[in-house]
Amino acid sequence: MQGLVENNKYINKSKRVTNIDFNCDLAQGFGIYKNEQEYDFLEYVSSVNISAGLHAGDPMTIKEAFLKAKEHNVVIGANIGYNDRQGFGLRAMNLSEDELEALVIYQVSALMSFAKAYGVEIEFVRTHGAMYRQASEDFTLSCNIARAIKKCSKWLSYVGAAGDVLTKTAEHVEIGVVQEFELTKNYRTDLTIDYNIPDISDADYLSRRLHKFLQYSQIENIAKGSNYIDADTLHFSNDLASLKLLREAAAMITPLPVNYSKVKNSGWV
Amino acid sequence: MQGLVENNKYINKSKRVTNIDFNCDLAQGFGIYKNEQEYDFLEYVSSVNISAGLHAGDPMTIKEAFLKAKEHNVVIGANIGYNDRQGFGLRAMNLSEDELEALVIYQVSALMSFAKAYGVEIEFVRTHGAMYRQASEDFTLSCNIARAIKKCSKWLSYVGAAGDVLTKTAEHVEIGVVQEFELTKNYRTDLTIDYNIPDISDADYLSRRLHKFLQYSQIENIAKGSNYIDADTLHFSNDLASLKLLREAAAMITPLPVNYSKVKNSGWV
Amino acid sequence: MQGLVENNKYINKSKRVTNIDFNCDLAQGFGIYKNEQEYDFLEYVSSVNISAGLHAGDPMTIKEAFLKAKEHNVVIGANIGYNDRQGFGLRAMNLSEDELEALVIYQVSALMSFAKAYGVEIEFVRTHGAMYRQASEDFTLSCNIARAIKKCSKWLSYVGAAGDVLTKTAEHVEIGVVQEFELTKNYRTDLTIDYNIPDISDADYLSRRLHKFLQYSQIENIAKGSNYIDADTLHFSNDLASLKLLREAAAMITPLPVNYSKVKNSGWV
Amino acid sequence: MQGLVENNKYINKSKRVTNIDFNCDLAQGFGIYKNEQEYDFLEYVSSVNISAGLHAGDPMTIKEAFLKAKEHNVVIGANIGYNDRQGFGLRAMNLSEDELEALVIYQVSALMSFAKAYGVEIEFVRTHGAMYRQASEDFTLSCNIARAIKKCSKWLSYVGAAGDVLTKTAEHVEIGVVQEFELTKNYRTDLTIDYNIPDISDADYLSRRLHKFLQYSQIENIAKGSNYIDADTLHFSNDLASLKLLREAAAMITPLPVNYSKVKNSGWV
Repeated sequence: MQGLVENNKYINKSKRVTNIDFNCDLAQGFGIYKNEQEYDFLEYVSSVNISAGLHAGDPMTIKEAFLKAKEHNVVIGANIGYNDRQGFGLRAMNLSEDELEALVIYQVSALMSFAKAYGVEIEFVRTHGAMYRQASEDFTLSCNIARAIKKCSKWLSYVGAAGDVLTKTAEHVEIGVVQEFELTKNYRTDLTIDYNIPDISDADYLSRRLHKFLQYSQIENIAKGSNYIDADTLHFSNDLASLKLLREAAAMITPLPVNYSKVKNSGWV
Repeated sequence: MQGLVENNKYINKSKRVTNIDFNCDLAQGFGIYKNEQEYDFLEYVSSVNISAGLHAGDPMTIKEAFLKAKEHNVVIGANIGYNDRQGFGLRAMNLSEDELEALVIYQVSALMSFAKAYGVEIEFVRTHGAMYRQASEDFTLSCNIARAIKKCSKWLSYVGAAGDVLTKTAEHVEIGVVQEFELTKNYRTDLTIDYNIPDISDADYLSRRLHKFLQYSQIENIAKGSNYIDADTLHFSNDLASLKLLREAAAMITPLPVNYSKVKNSGWV
Repeated sequence: MQGLVENNKYINKSKRVTNIDFNCDLAQGFGIYKNEQEYDFLEYVSSVNISAGLHAGDPMTIKEAFLKAKEHNVVIGANIGYNDRQGFGLRAMNLSEDELEALVIYQVSALMSFAKAYGVEIEFVRTHGAMYRQASEDFTLSCNIARAIKKCSKWLSYVGAAGDVLTKTAEHVEIGVVQEFELTKNYRTDLTIDYNIPDISDADYLSRRLHKFLQYSQIENIAKGSNYIDADTLHFSNDLASLKLLREAAAMITPLPVNYSKVKNSGWV
Repeated sequence: MQGLVENNKYINKSKRVTNIDFNCDLAQGFGIYKNEQEYDFLEYVSSVNISAGLHAGDPMTIKEAFLKAKEHNVVIGANIGYNDRQGFGLRAMNLSEDELEALVIYQVSALMSFAKAYGVEIEFVRTHGAMYRQASEDFTLSCNIARAIKKCSKWLSYVGAAGDVLTKTAEHVEIGVVQEFELTKNYRTDLTIDYNIPDISDADYLSRRLHKFLQYSQIENIAKGSNYIDADTLHFSNDLASLKLLREAAAMITPLPVNYSKVKNSGWV
């Protein structure tokens, strides 16, 4: 974690990745709008984020996602977002602290007990779209989200864009966090994401990024320098290029869900 | 319960009501559409049904309802309905068994963990509007709903219109049920509700119905005869006439939430 | 039209189809849920039904559909349905006459002026999903819909499932109607559709149905007999099998939009 | 209009108001959430803004609003907003130019033909909530909205917060604009509204503001100075204090709808 806070010092640091989670979204459909491509990712990931029914997903879609996740024995998290189905949760909103708390708790709750009804568990919460972006930059917002998650259960981890804001949230709210990276994103030298630059889509370059990350825990930033990154999870978005990259990644290393990694690091297994 | 199955035999039966729950709905607003009148009922009822956010309610409204319910120390249930906000859940829908299960579990789940986040508990589930009506007449539907509730937690009771269908559901699904009556409804001789007749609004007649019920456990049916009723809870809808009636009822007897009644009947208190 | 009313007499009637409209739906997406396959149909149809934004479609999707329809120079109609986006308008609802009127007028209106803003016109209205089915069987409902359409403009035609109900609606409301057939539907001997039987998907059989229809204006009913049909338009649903069939149909006959057919029948062109 | 652009010069200008429109919102309910208070305003206003069904209103509510407006013979406009029913259109959104155009046209269209079906006309378009605020400050946005309105019909006027942005929009887009003021708003010295200060609710002060406005066309700004204002319409929001103020205003001057004022100014009546 400290590597992120003062990452400049660590630019020369290099470490082969041994424990990494592969993650994707699930239950992104709605009504007749099915997203069956998302199931193709299930063979290769170790964790999934299931939409909670406001920005995407509906009870049937969510139920099916639980059953698919159970079948593939992956770790399950809640993917929560703004209540904006038409915008798929991608449009920024400014809610009061009270409203945000209620919005987070409603969605996490809906999935927590739902999961139990099918014999599975929600182990983490990830914010989606605009909420994810805003939380990656706004420490107060990030803490408010984290506190709401903690109110649902103290066993839940909070997944966010890796970086200082998330690290500080972990300390301030006393919540377990999961540092997430995406190979397609453009990282600044301070490891924040520059959303003004279109995501990387060049397959060859993505493949090189993947290799560099797995071999050295390093990623090229937008200034063409390298940053050491201490990622807990690699997120793969839901498109064919991403699926290809995920397959390549899975061929190189077997992903471990975050909690299993912790246990492994502890020496138990 | 048997009294309901073969109620004709019991027409002459009479018993002073000693344990009865008073119940009303909560969190019926949405966004800017507040329903502040509903809080006036909180002083007199012993249990509330909180809307689960699909037919009515939103995270903020639900949160406020939990806090108000907690403040008044009433027992809390989830009020679940069809996903039809424009129709307030009053329009009949025909869902597949799978869809219905998902719909029920999503809503019950949303409230179960939400409640815990604020230090309260969901103790029962009540269906709302069209789902309530359909479940009161359709044994298969009633069982499907009950089974979905039971999947969420075996400690949840299922509240429905008192009658044979509910009684048989209890036996078939092995779930605790709560027999609900409403003074404003028109009961047939078999104690099913005739929804084609407008609800009773005559204040004097309602008052007489209330007295007769509390004194003899009897209600006048639409054939002008009397039925013995073994109600667990009296539901009060959200209007001024109902509030007046509720006040009158509360002046005559202190309501006991259903679970407390059971404990009381057991001799523990 | 009379052929439909007393179709039994006409079983031996046979006529090569010379004027027929090919029709499909457009703007069936919502938000991020795009349906780009639907544009593939535009090369072959002569008219399209654009979703009005309640059961499917949103302003952006609708705008794009208008532009695509304009580009392909096809005749445009409004596809109106129940306000049930999750159910894609496929779930039956029972609205009051007043509510239905308002629902129809709102949707037709939204598309009428919208079309004009982009230099095109709405020439007909088609009901979608559950509203279509209900209207094909319920004369009163069909008349109420037709009357609401007529209130929007007396120049609008009303498209419905070919049959007695539609014919009688035309006479009763004095509105121009368009008799629609679908090759994939199972027709009873009275030419009503049996929705309990799954749609026909056998490509070879569909191809034979197409040929028989175009050569003799006849269709095989579910009793294995033949009905003479006097269709104004053939509707093609939005799937690959349908697209294949449409291509086959377009290779055999150039479709004419309904209004153009009328002009052609009048001898003007 | 020029008075607004260079209002500092006009601080000493004073003119009795002779032509002024009184305006309020209508169709602000949704489904079971009725707003019957809004009809009380109809006796005193000369124009109404009818919600277009996205931020508020639904087909039934809109239909009823048209009938009420017709009954009271008031001029009718479309009240359009962001598609955010839960937030009542009060939450800022940032749409692309394309999306905004489609959103505006959809809503204006829905009301234009709807109005005609009931023998009335939409004569102007007013933006609601967040869209209104953003348009009052953002010239580009204001022009985009105005252009979309103009695409629907060149006869429609565009109502906005009085000020330079609206004036410049009128010139740039060549659209008729209506300068709107609200007695409850806090105006800066440049006549823009300071939304950070809570609306004025002091009844006596509001009454004094009303008198000063009607007698001298002047309003006190937040710097305690006076601005000359050349308002076309006074908007009254939907609360009891506002209704009281409206009644007081109506007792002092008979309102004239904007278009009628123009005719009057021309010497025709």
